[in-house]
Amino acid sequence: MHGESYETISVSDDVVILIDQRRLPGELVDFICSDYRDIEYAIRDMVVRGAPAIGATAAYGVWLAAKELVKKRDGTSNEKSEFLSSLKEACRFIEAARPTAVNLAWAIHRMWEVVEQDPACEPTLIVRRLLDEAQAIHREDIETNRRIAAWGVEIIPDHGTVLTHCNTGSLATAGWGTALGVIKQAHIQGKGIFVYADETRPRLQGARLTAWELMQAGIPSMLLPDSAAAVLIRDKKIDCVILGADRIAANGDVCNKIGTFMLSVLCRTYGVPFYCAAPLSTFDPTILDGSAIPIEMRDPSEVTAIGDVKIAPIGMPAFNPAFDVTPHDHVTGIITEVGILRPPYRQSIEEALRSVSR
Amino acid sequence: MHGESYETISVSDDVVILIDQRRLPGELVDFICSDYRDIEYAIRDMVVRGAPAIGATAAYGVWLAAKELVKKRDGTSNEKSEFLSSLKEACRFIEAARPTAVNLAWAIHRMWEVVEQDPACEPTLIVRRLLDEAQAIHREDIETNRRIAAWGVEIIPDHGTVLTHCNTGSLATAGWGTALGVIKQAHIQGKGIFVYADETRPRLQGARLTAWELMQAGIPSMLLPDSAAAVLIRDKKIDCVILGADRIAANGDVCNKIGTFMLSVLCRTYGVPFYCAAPLSTFDPTILDGSAIPIEMRDPSEVTAIGDVKIAPIGMPAFNPAFDVTPHDHVTGIITEVGILRPPYRQSIEEALRSVSR
Repeated sequence: MHGESYETISVSDDVVILIDQRRLPGELVDFICSDYRDIEYAIRDMVVRGAPAIGATAAYGVWLAAKELVKKRDGTSNEKSEFLSSLKEACRFIEAARPTAVNLAWAIHRMWEVVEQDPACEPTLIVRRLLDEAQAIHREDIETNRRIAAWGVEIIPDHGTVLTHCNTGSLATAGWGTALGVIKQAHIQGKGIFVYADETRPRLQGARLTAWELMQAGIPSMLLPDSAAAVLIRDKKIDCVILGADRIAANGDVCNKIGTFMLSVLCRTYGVPFYCAAPLSTFDPTILDGSAIPIEMRDPSEVTAIGDVKIAPIGMPAFNPAFDVTPHDHVTGIITEVGILRPPYRQSIEEALRSVSR
Repeated sequence: MHGESYETISVSDDVVILIDQRRLPGELVDFICSDYRDIEYAIRDMVVRGAPAIGATAAYGVWLAAKELVKKRDGTSNEKSEFLSSLKEACRFIEAARPTAVNLAWAIHRMWEVVEQDPACEPTLIVRRLLDEAQAIHREDIETNRRIAAWGVEIIPDHGTVLTHCNTGSLATAGWGTALGVIKQAHIQGKGIFVYADETRPRLQGARLTAWELMQAGIPSMLLPDSAAAVLIRDKKIDCVILGADRIAANGDVCNKIGTFMLSVLCRTYGVPFYCAAPLSTFDPTILDGSAIPIEMRDPSEVTAIGDVKIAPIGMPAFNPAFDVTPHDHVTGIITEVGILRPPYRQSIEEALRSVSR
């Protein structure tokens, strides 16, 4: 579908099939979601992660929930209202799986609009329309990423060296990727780039997923501990940093994987361009600035153990925020499907969102 | 010897006993060094690490080498000169185990002065004097650390929150510790402190060793991914950062564990005091500034695997410098056994070194 040999999310008649990203790079295996509870678990436990991928997965979850509820119909007169209230409950359940990436709420909201658009619609037909909508979200995300890549490629100089953080490739989206999509595009266009990939503690998305995607794409690259990026940035060995986002506030504050803020301070101090690549579905105009974005605190065991290997003494507490907020004035530009947004962001974001609203 | 239940380095009649720090916190087991080759291996493979601990261990290595050479004597007339040339070779071998921490060269140099001080001295007597000197280095390092702690404790406010990086405790020294020694002293004095310990990728000295020492000492503390320190520093949740050094140049540039420089930039940007604690044996007045300090590049497998667990695809290269250099103008003060050195460092360092030269 998008020119790669692996599909982060795919769908058959009855199930949604995810790549189990917890098991990469050691194993490339599927995780089968038979119902919306599986979808919620897959998002919560990070079988699937990355804001756009979470959104598309959640959309399929709403379809699975509706399909299950239709099967349970009892033929009573209040059948439709029960269907709707149960479906609403399932939507809330999926939406609560993770709090930070706004694409999750965005996708659920878009799916719910399908449910509400035609009050006379039969549940069976709603199910069919929900599958259509989920597939549209899926397909549009890939198209969006292709457009992000086309816009973004200009920021990477020929023979440039790029640093990225976390995973923002095909695995983080419905396909192709955001920041890593830009990087892959630059490689395909023959720019002769080199990529440094932060390992991205604690979940090691850089080491496990980005390194894997870079190798699959044949892009010359190197992994590094997150704390080693500082000397590369200081020593002008990086032409630009480019990474993704989980939620962007109305003023351009960027919430992204823990470690992003640290990189932004280093880039600002040493004059290295700092770009974020994200679809418009990652923007949350209801949030005025980054301080209002909920930051997910994850289990300390992500820090104190790696797989089954304990790396800290038993009982040691750990501080484990999944994300941090980078203030808009640290951000050189935000690459979206409608172009690269520049400061002042309040204005450029508003214009970009207006350009696509129907 | 220093009020703790574990001894990083100890010595019996024939062997040097190290805590095998590669196996902490899972197991507290000894690594026995029967000869100077074991000592070199122990330093190179990081059975023992931490600049002062490496120095003391190397000193015992010189003693073990001399002891072995005395046993090999053949009774010929050039016995003494052969002893000296073989011992010199052993010293060079030990000194080459790791390049960055100057305490290693410092300890070897000090041991060699014992060999040379009395040209008429019999090898058997030299062996005895070398043991005395190694034990003096060992004992003095602990005393030095106690003095560093006494000076340093003033920088930690009552109920203060401190962030540290890597391991600078008893395990990193002959006993008690440098930066962590200051922290333990503040705790003992009832300051009611809280400690954030960076996990310190890639070797996880913070997670494995500092967390273990903090728990042994009963100090309230929390582990965190290195990249998560940035938000704590920005949000003024840290009163000061205090960490160690592997080599300090004549101008006060501090070479220390990778990640130190990143912390220094954050502290400077957000106005948080940034202290280094190190004995005078860590200063290298022959190095004018940090750019001349050799930075050890370690094996990529330290980044791509944790123990036996592969965390990156096979064949992925990794950038793995063990240390970085923090410029002197990022350093609030350097805590030594003769007091806290302040800028201008070229002057304060020169005065401190002069005060202890004989």
